Amino acid sequence: MLEKRPIKSLFLSPRSVVFVGVPRKSGPGALNPVDNLRNWGYQGRISIVHPHAKEIAGISVLSNVSRLNDEVDLAVISTPRETIPGIVRQCGAKGIRAVIVTNQGFAEADERGEELQREMLAAAGKFEMRILGPNTLGVSNAFNGFNSSFMPLPREEVPVGLVCQSGVFFVGVNHLVSGMGIGIDVGNACDLNIVDALEWLGEEQRIKVIALHAEEIPDGKRFLEVAERIGRRIPIVALKTGRSQEGARAAASHSGSLAADDRVVAAAFQKAGVIRIDETQDQLDLVRGFLRLPPIKGPRIAVVTLTGAGGIILLDSMERHGLESAKLSKGTIDAIQSLSPDWMGLTNPIDIWPAVMKHGMRKAYTTALRDALADPGVDGVLCFALALGDAEQKHLGAEEVIQQLSDKFAKPVVVWTYGPQREDAARRVEQHGRALAVPSLERGVRLLASMVRYENWKNNGTCLVP
Amino acid sequence: MLEKRPIKSLFLSPRSVVFVGVPRKSGPGALNPVDNLRNWGYQGRISIVHPHAKEIAGISVLSNVSRLNDEVDLAVISTPRETIPGIVRQCGAKGIRAVIVTNQGFAEADERGEELQREMLAAAGKFEMRILGPNTLGVSNAFNGFNSSFMPLPREEVPVGLVCQSGVFFVGVNHLVSGMGIGIDVGNACDLNIVDALEWLGEEQRIKVIALHAEEIPDGKRFLEVAERIGRRIPIVALKTGRSQEGARAAASHSGSLAADDRVVAAAFQKAGVIRIDETQDQLDLVRGFLRLPPIKGPRIAVVTLTGAGGIILLDSMERHGLESAKLSKGTIDAIQSLSPDWMGLTNPIDIWPAVMKHGMRKAYTTALRDALADPGVDGVLCFALALGDAEQKHLGAEEVIQQLSDKFAKPVVVWTYGPQREDAARRVEQHGRALAVPSLERGVRLLASMVRYENWKNNGTCLVP
Repeated sequence: MLEKRPIKSLFLSPRSVVFVGVPRKSGPGALNPVDNLRNWGYQGRISIVHPHAKEIAGISVLSNVSRLNDEVDLAVISTPRETIPGIVRQCGAKGIRAVIVTNQGFAEADERGEELQREMLAAAGKFEMRILGPNTLGVSNAFNGFNSSFMPLPREEVPVGLVCQSGVFFVGVNHLVSGMGIGIDVGNACDLNIVDALEWLGEEQRIKVIALHAEEIPDGKRFLEVAERIGRRIPIVALKTGRSQEGARAAASHSGSLAADDRVVAAAFQKAGVIRIDETQDQLDLVRGFLRLPPIKGPRIAVVTLTGAGGIILLDSMERHGLESAKLSKGTIDAIQSLSPDWMGLTNPIDIWPAVMKHGMRKAYTTALRDALADPGVDGVLCFALALGDAEQKHLGAEEVIQQLSDKFAKPVVVWTYGPQREDAARRVEQHGRALAVPSLERGVRLLASMVRYENWKNNGTCLVP
Repeated sequence: MLEKRPIKSLFLSPRSVVFVGVPRKSGPGALNPVDNLRNWGYQGRISIVHPHAKEIAGISVLSNVSRLNDEVDLAVISTPRETIPGIVRQCGAKGIRAVIVTNQGFAEADERGEELQREMLAAAGKFEMRILGPNTLGVSNAFNGFNSSFMPLPREEVPVGLVCQSGVFFVGVNHLVSGMGIGIDVGNACDLNIVDALEWLGEEQRIKVIALHAEEIPDGKRFLEVAERIGRRIPIVALKTGRSQEGARAAASHSGSLAADDRVVAAAFQKAGVIRIDETQDQLDLVRGFLRLPPIKGPRIAVVTLTGAGGIILLDSMERHGLESAKLSKGTIDAIQSLSPDWMGLTNPIDIWPAVMKHGMRKAYTTALRDALADPGVDGVLCFALALGDAEQKHLGAEEVIQQLSDKFAKPVVVWTYGPQREDAARRVEQHGRALAVPSLERGVRLLASMVRYENWKNNGTCLVP
């Protein structure tokens, strides 16, 4: 007899999957999960159960789960809610131990839904099955081409793990997280929950950062234990929703969540080193930051600016978020002062514009950025890059300098690219080296402040800025 | 004798301009303001003064201001700081009444700079001249093709006015404000200041919204009076920097500003109906919002969502910013309920995904958006739009529905476009109608909350959310 595969593998790397209920159409626009698996080059075996169709997407269809002949790792069920407890039982009888239930209409909906969710769970319990969902897009694992979702997604083998309670994070993947290597949508979390999903991702060596969306923090003690352990290796960037009164009420009718006092959640996150963000965009920024940037050792930031006004905006924002304006050494100041007009009283933020006008962008920028990075009083650098048309960019572009210097020192370099050609300049900044481009000054500040919090938790056990 | 042109026209619409000090090179990358004027199709007369060159950019060069033969409306001076008081005097003697001094190195720099700034002012006073600057890119007026700046900028005749104390807002124009019809950088504001600039823009019928960047609020009483008067017709969206201790110190050495207590500034803005934002991105969003969206009558927001989780994120953010979740009428609820599964207990946020699955995107979205907009309990709508590939977009795109409905009701419609093709979907949303696309839920909320504050100030005299 074959050794039993662990539950985690059945969900994340199934060697065979049966879809119970898929659209009869396939092809562009049909939202057929079988198409998505094909597009992703999934290598496992695919079966389909449908009561009426003979063939779907070129695959012979079985009329019933009981007709399955081969061993199946995972069932993905998308049939009307009344049928689901029965189908779960049939799957169990066939030896299937992992089930994803995608439908809505369970504990989040009404009493009948609660009842059906209980029945489904009871059936699963009898056969030692585990259920992901209901109300979920399921699992997406770009590393082995498996994706249970009916939404067409780009396959990106990036070291990003996503744990969420909603398909919106799968769909908005390029937008909300920077692609995902492995995504797990726990939906209503009637059985497997975010703690299980975190634990699975924590064991994946290919995952280097985790984005978490949670409407509820279940099983508080275990959550703390798991998050704290994973957090040592993998930063967890969390968006906990349902914080407001209205939001908590809505969470109850979305995933059936029970809202905890938000102060309890905040304390738990702080203890476990979970980096909490308030805005969806910040989650994207932090995921990208943890992937590209070296760790930051402290809150002392040097600013290399092309504009005094921008430097001031940064100082305002840094103070608000607990970062410090680095005290630069005399050597750093002198180096850039020697390129600047005599009347300039240089300090941090380092305004290099007058030096650029005298000596050109390359020389002024290289001096300022290199010396700031080498300065022992500096933990990280925020710098500016103009993004103009090609002709001007030759003279005023700093992308190459940034590329070259950004991996010479083990300190993060975050670059605000601004001007009409922002996207192009951002791409060039990130082409080589380890610098990260951001679309606004304030997002750069929040990103670094969160990274400081994370390092401070790792080193000193507290998630607060020093 | 000709009638004297008003000072404002000399700066914003000069019929002739002399550049004292420009690069000898011209063409791509030279950063020569004369090139920029040519590229913008400036129709006025251009003279150049340079001590050594014979010809620059195809224009015969004069060695000295005193050699000017024709009447000149405006002088743009960019020579070493020691020369400037003398050149201002020469300009005065030639009857030039408007001067832009672009250089740095004055009151913001050192004692000698302060002295030179005083001398320059004294010279101007003798000839009844007005000075914009020093330390400025000057003026940009896309409506008549005039631009004093050496930075190449796109010419966009949009009804946006910009008043700032830094060239970064000129350069980052596409990024920080949504293009600018007329931009005025007051720099150190040694003479003309932000209040003068606001007053000028307030008289321009083509300007419909003003973005303000200020490091200092000068002349408090006049500022209040001017801002309040302009604000009746034109919303002013202000980023006041130098709020933090470090920031205030830096502002003093950037534009020589004296920092006021930030609470005084806050009170002044509130009284004058100036919409204060904390982040540069919010300024961009609000400028775009005021241009596209109809005014919002109150804080009651309906949400049309494709995801329960997104609805919850919105509720959290709305509560934080003082917006209310609208209580929908029974008719509105019933209409979308009739398309949804029985088990759904519909409320606001209106989650239409189950209805979309049953009846298709067009029918479900049209019903929900139309009824929400028609509901007397709703002041504005935040809605969701998926942004997938072409094939899926045919089935799941809501852009056309949004276009059609967004100008049928005098209520703002703000659309979060999400998914891999976000930019494309945003463009389509804004192609027709009056809806505004935003890149994050939270930015949509902050935008509407600020618009509510503005309307509340206009109607009730207070800038707070009701």
